[in-house]
Amino acid sequence: MLGTSGNLSAVVQREPLRLAMSPSGVDKGELTAQQVLTIDEDARIVSDHAAKPSDESLLHIRITKQLGAGAVLHTHSVWNTMLSDLYAADGGINIEGYEMLKGLQGVKTHEHREWLPIIDNSQDMPALAAAIAATLERNKATHGFLLKRHGLYSWGDNLAQAKRHIEILEFLLETLGRTLLAENSKR
Amino acid sequence: MLGTSGNLSAVVQREPLRLAMSPSGVDKGELTAQQVLTIDEDARIVSDHAAKPSDESLLHIRITKQLGAGAVLHTHSVWNTMLSDLYAADGGINIEGYEMLKGLQGVKTHEHREWLPIIDNSQDMPALAAAIAATLERNKATHGFLLKRHGLYSWGDNLAQAKRHIEILEFLLETLGRTLLAENSKR
Amino acid sequence: MLGTSGNLSAVVQREPLRLAMSPSGVDKGELTAQQVLTIDEDARIVSDHAAKPSDESLLHIRITKQLGAGAVLHTHSVWNTMLSDLYAADGGINIEGYEMLKGLQGVKTHEHREWLPIIDNSQDMPALAAAIAATLERNKATHGFLLKRHGLYSWGDNLAQAKRHIEILEFLLETLGRTLLAENSKR
Amino acid sequence: MLGTSGNLSAVVQREPLRLAMSPSGVDKGELTAQQVLTIDEDARIVSDHAAKPSDESLLHIRITKQLGAGAVLHTHSVWNTMLSDLYAADGGINIEGYEMLKGLQGVKTHEHREWLPIIDNSQDMPALAAAIAATLERNKATHGFLLKRHGLYSWGDNLAQAKRHIEILEFLLETLGRTLLAENSKR
Repeated sequence: MLGTSGNLSAVVQREPLRLAMSPSGVDKGELTAQQVLTIDEDARIVSDHAAKPSDESLLHIRITKQLGAGAVLHTHSVWNTMLSDLYAADGGINIEGYEMLKGLQGVKTHEHREWLPIIDNSQDMPALAAAIAATLERNKATHGFLLKRHGLYSWGDNLAQAKRHIEILEFLLETLGRTLLAENSKR
Repeated sequence: MLGTSGNLSAVVQREPLRLAMSPSGVDKGELTAQQVLTIDEDARIVSDHAAKPSDESLLHIRITKQLGAGAVLHTHSVWNTMLSDLYAADGGINIEGYEMLKGLQGVKTHEHREWLPIIDNSQDMPALAAAIAATLERNKATHGFLLKRHGLYSWGDNLAQAKRHIEILEFLLETLGRTLLAENSKR
Repeated sequence: MLGTSGNLSAVVQREPLRLAMSPSGVDKGELTAQQVLTIDEDARIVSDHAAKPSDESLLHIRITKQLGAGAVLHTHSVWNTMLSDLYAADGGINIEGYEMLKGLQGVKTHEHREWLPIIDNSQDMPALAAAIAATLERNKATHGFLLKRHGLYSWGDNLAQAKRHIEILEFLLETLGRTLLAENSKR
Repeated sequence: MLGTSGNLSAVVQREPLRLAMSPSGVDKGELTAQQVLTIDEDARIVSDHAAKPSDESLLHIRITKQLGAGAVLHTHSVWNTMLSDLYAADGGINIEGYEMLKGLQGVKTHEHREWLPIIDNSQDMPALAAAIAATLERNKATHGFLLKRHGLYSWGDNLAQAKRHIEILEFLLETLGRTLLAENSKR
């Protein structure tokens, strides 16, 4: 996670909801256990920290509650940023026929079709959370989504699975991006 | 080897065949010696492990028996995935004229022509093993093959040689992929 | 910072100006605290070193004085070099609509428009410093600039912020460069 | 240096010539001081080693003698391999106008023009050494050359300078390669 970009959360308790959440403005490569906040379902800090939770805490809470995820990860990479832009007009990216898809929870064959929705970016977090909720409602089987010119969200039952999903989706996005370039040259 | 993808095997004993084999679903970057399974020629675990052997164990066994290889490696990379797709209709990729080819066992000159066959991917392991066997029968001199949108297989007399072959083929695939792009621009 | 390329400075004292400055001709990856020079506002060494200050010290001094920056960083990367060339005729590069822009000091929304000016390279340091001063006078809000076929300059209140600005601008330049390639293929 | 590819030499003594030379077939990333051979001007081992000197020892000797170099480095990279192929018909690559050129010994300005000759690859080492000698005779100011679909040679007064030259030439080759792609897209 470059500079202060990206963030992560993990469910500590379901009822009432408590999320371990990375703080705002901290270099994630240097994140220490002491810096991790605990927040409630309204993104208020319930641990003993003077820090500010990430602006995107509301998005993590929404994903956690709607999907029952145990952990949520969000990354900014060159490939996910550029493809979220390039395919924005299509509303998403279709990823199909790759063996690597089998690393996504519940996928048994490379013949799986993963639709990765792209949602317009916004600084209005409640509005963005609502847009994400509506997108996830329409795409119940998806393992992640892109925010346009912003980054990738994925999740899992726990942090290890969420990390595996991020790695697989990043791999497939880079593969799709490079294939797009090469296909054009091969014609 | 990204996430849980890729796998490796090495011959422990020829008669009856015993292969040291990476387990299924384990992050290969964190693979420990204790996790390595021993399997027989029917992919049954003969070591004291509750784990599941990799789904692709049958492919390793077939390659080992047919070619007398001492070790087999399988990798998923962005470049091997995209080129296995891009050249699938050609049935393979021709690699010719590169000094780096001399790193492949038995190759003495850059004027060597390496034909890297591409085989359709499948989740039916016995059928895929049979397709691989037929391809290797027709291409006795090859040092590896690609599974479409899946990855690269290579092998050697031992793990060090198999690793060298994988590194060389990955290098050459990236070189071919980038050349394809640049050739088009230079015209 | 590759080989002996790139350099960095940080303000030690404002009145009279004293800059900690990387020396000329030293591999920056192996730079030690003992090698860091202290220079005055005419780029004369005031610390006890027999070394030569970087040729580009005058540029660091000018940026520091004009903008009140606390630290200045200069990097040579493949992406910043090629884009400084490709967009030179446009006089700069427009970076707009990326979430990552929010990592630049004072930027609150992805809807920010960052104009990164491109200045012709020169070995005449006083002339180049004057060209930079004129460019910064016309572009008071910019967080960096490019020297054509040479590299990127950025700055901040301190070294940590300057480093964050460099990382963000490098990320965005690579994203723009790759998008340029892919857009063309997608059409 | 990938796998067993690439090699390096350094002058130990001028009269009679003694070169410290990397052995053949050893993984250069794992090269130890004990493995380094000493050879004479006919590429015969004069140190107490049972090893075989690199096939390309004759090329190192020729470069050392003709140019008075203190060290020679040879690398295989994806970018140097593909550009040595792409520009082979032009006989070389022109690198001009880059600040990074100033890292090459004796170059004082970015306005320098570096002509990097490309020589056809061969397994006949005496013939290849002769072709290199003729090329260097015609291009006395060059800091390196490419062997087609093979790799890059550079040199310096000592290993540190040779390494700096290799790093700079690799940087510039990648920059040229990426610029070629992007220029085409920007038109």
